Amino acid sequence: MNRIFIKNAILDGAEKNILIEGNLISRITPAEVEPDVQVTDRAKVIEAKNKVVIPGLVNMHTHSAMTLMRGIYEDARLDEWLSNIWKIEPRLDDELVYWGTKLACLEMIKSGTTTFNDQYWKIDTAVKAVSEMGLRSVNPYVFLDLNDTSKDEFLKEECMRIHEESASWNELNTFAVAIHAPYSVSEKLMLWAGDYARKNSLLLHIHLSETRKEQQDSMKLHNLSPTQYLESLGILAPNVIAAHCVWMSDKDIELAAKHDIKIVHNINSNLKLASGYRFRYSEFRDAGLTVTLGTDGCASSNNLDMLEAMKTAALVQKAWREDPTVLPLDELMEMATVNGARALNIDSGVIEEGKLADMVLIDTDNYAFTPNYNFLANLVYSANSSCVDTVICNGNIVMEGRRVKGEEQILENVRRIYGRLQKS
Amino acid sequence: MNRIFIKNAILDGAEKNILIEGNLISRITPAEVEPDVQVTDRAKVIEAKNKVVIPGLVNMHTHSAMTLMRGIYEDARLDEWLSNIWKIEPRLDDELVYWGTKLACLEMIKSGTTTFNDQYWKIDTAVKAVSEMGLRSVNPYVFLDLNDTSKDEFLKEECMRIHEESASWNELNTFAVAIHAPYSVSEKLMLWAGDYARKNSLLLHIHLSETRKEQQDSMKLHNLSPTQYLESLGILAPNVIAAHCVWMSDKDIELAAKHDIKIVHNINSNLKLASGYRFRYSEFRDAGLTVTLGTDGCASSNNLDMLEAMKTAALVQKAWREDPTVLPLDELMEMATVNGARALNIDSGVIEEGKLADMVLIDTDNYAFTPNYNFLANLVYSANSSCVDTVICNGNIVMEGRRVKGEEQILENVRRIYGRLQKS
Repeated sequence: MNRIFIKNAILDGAEKNILIEGNLISRITPAEVEPDVQVTDRAKVIEAKNKVVIPGLVNMHTHSAMTLMRGIYEDARLDEWLSNIWKIEPRLDDELVYWGTKLACLEMIKSGTTTFNDQYWKIDTAVKAVSEMGLRSVNPYVFLDLNDTSKDEFLKEECMRIHEESASWNELNTFAVAIHAPYSVSEKLMLWAGDYARKNSLLLHIHLSETRKEQQDSMKLHNLSPTQYLESLGILAPNVIAAHCVWMSDKDIELAAKHDIKIVHNINSNLKLASGYRFRYSEFRDAGLTVTLGTDGCASSNNLDMLEAMKTAALVQKAWREDPTVLPLDELMEMATVNGARALNIDSGVIEEGKLADMVLIDTDNYAFTPNYNFLANLVYSANSSCVDTVICNGNIVMEGRRVKGEEQILENVRRIYGRLQKS
Repeated sequence: MNRIFIKNAILDGAEKNILIEGNLISRITPAEVEPDVQVTDRAKVIEAKNKVVIPGLVNMHTHSAMTLMRGIYEDARLDEWLSNIWKIEPRLDDELVYWGTKLACLEMIKSGTTTFNDQYWKIDTAVKAVSEMGLRSVNPYVFLDLNDTSKDEFLKEECMRIHEESASWNELNTFAVAIHAPYSVSEKLMLWAGDYARKNSLLLHIHLSETRKEQQDSMKLHNLSPTQYLESLGILAPNVIAAHCVWMSDKDIELAAKHDIKIVHNINSNLKLASGYRFRYSEFRDAGLTVTLGTDGCASSNNLDMLEAMKTAALVQKAWREDPTVLPLDELMEMATVNGARALNIDSGVIEEGKLADMVLIDTDNYAFTPNYNFLANLVYSANSSCVDTVICNGNIVMEGRRVKGEEQILENVRRIYGRLQKS
């Protein structure tokens, strides 16, 4: 059995020893308690003096291979930006998706993410890349027909075929379904996708209520908000993961809570594309909703850094609500870890015996953590992701001392091929 | 003469060789032009392959020794926060200010800042620390009497005494005057300070129009906004550096432009303390004002990272104005470099022959700069300050390969003494 023994790590303010066996956290003891030599003799030992253990971060909404489009269009209006992205995407081939997904995984590992909820094309190729990197992911088949139903039968068949093939994926990568957005998928196909997800107990990932225009168009077309429209179709359910949710009304929030859908806040993308910043965190929380955090893809928000997303989310909530007590550090940490794990039905997001061994060691021996009045404040508001020292996912070390296996090869390959995206 | 020869650095998209002689950039040539061996033989050589040269960043508003209060009060309301800070500050002794300022300089160097506009206590001690770290700074004597004029004569004398002593400071550290804020200094003392600054050609650093309450209180007391009040006293002039400026009206902006005062945006602090986020960048720019960027002190915004400040500033402008074209990358870079240098009357902020040698080498051989469509977009939106590799200030290397001389000693000393601040 795979064994890792982490010595003298700081957990909840005290030094602890942590034993990982297989893919689980099997034992946590005070650092002064002598370990069982029988066990630790056969374990990989990590000396974690001055390092704080936190749960692996959970990025609840991204488009991983879009790392290949990092910085490709800047300071542009949404319509211009989108039309450029859509011109590029048909050029994506398997090799681009493979290395783009690897680059995304590399970046997520370096910034402390162990699990992500993806939404992109060529998911069989993407899953191959994710598996090799050792991360946990949810990979939906994405429905997007732009209301042209002529290909819908093909899409359904492809979805079912990949679903079947996903039985061969490793245990860390889960098949799911995505409805791109209520405005970009025909009603019939949405109904089919919602039904398919429910019958097969699959998560259903949707872009929802992202822009004012989406809200207005939906009112014109259906006399319902996007959330109300999905509810009227019977699609809202606890398996729905709704990304953005910037423009939800009181009634929308009530419906979201009634059906226990999961909410993903993507602050940096919402700011950069000027989609909106009035994310109603307090109302979502007070309605009992599970609120989680994501980075969105690198084409819009340029990086996959969850620590940055945490910082911006808290700063903007405080400023917009004119109340510095809003979204305090403990709630912010839950958003970025255990709430995401719960939404994805993964038994991790906290460091406790019996939980999945998804964790990160934060190096505090640097200026960003000096002085050390408040670890979480330093982590979120002072440090950046270069403090992420070691990352363990499902009981496997994916980064140690900031070294990720195959890092140079990923950068070399991306540099070799990304130019293809710009070719006319 | 001190000589540094930087080989194969990327400047404006092309490989260049840069020669620094004394404290100036003396020569910039294409990388393929053979250097003059007579000169380079006697130079320290830096191989800068894959490194991009940018001007040193200019942090236009901070309170450097407040790094000692990083994270001390979190998620707190402004009044509670302030009263706690004010309880702590009397405990500051020379040793705390010395090591606190060194920690601030260490952090600024590590994140690419070469010049800062400070505002804090015990400036003779602070300047000693800054000099040893090799950074450029402006250090005002701060007037703050909370409208109790009994000590004003003492304050004026102390100001004049330190001004006189500042003749012995090294050339990188400039004496200035600060009026803490229009509401915290008696009118007579403000008039004296403004007059003293003008007569002695000194910069005058002021907190201005930071909170809604400040704006409202000023209207009640003077029937004038803070900006209008200062104008009525004859204090506004081109030497005035106004930090925050969050609540300025059209008329305030008109007055600011008429007197050519310099504007400092401190987005992270304004967000975190919920002071306000509607910083009227476009109006300031259109009025011809010099708009610059700062981090504020670590008690409020937790770090001194100008790259983070750039990112948040741009994101919030785009979102608030509902226009992703607002505050584009080139203007953002000017805010963080040449605009600040201009406001402080320092001939740097651009990489050109004849300018002061204040520059930073950015390492692009990592995931944050891959792909590489747009260097500035990667620097601001994708990377974090761990990409800062080498920092040169006034022709001296203050960091090379991320190593700063005396770094461990600074952290050790801060850890040894910071607990004193919390003692009752």
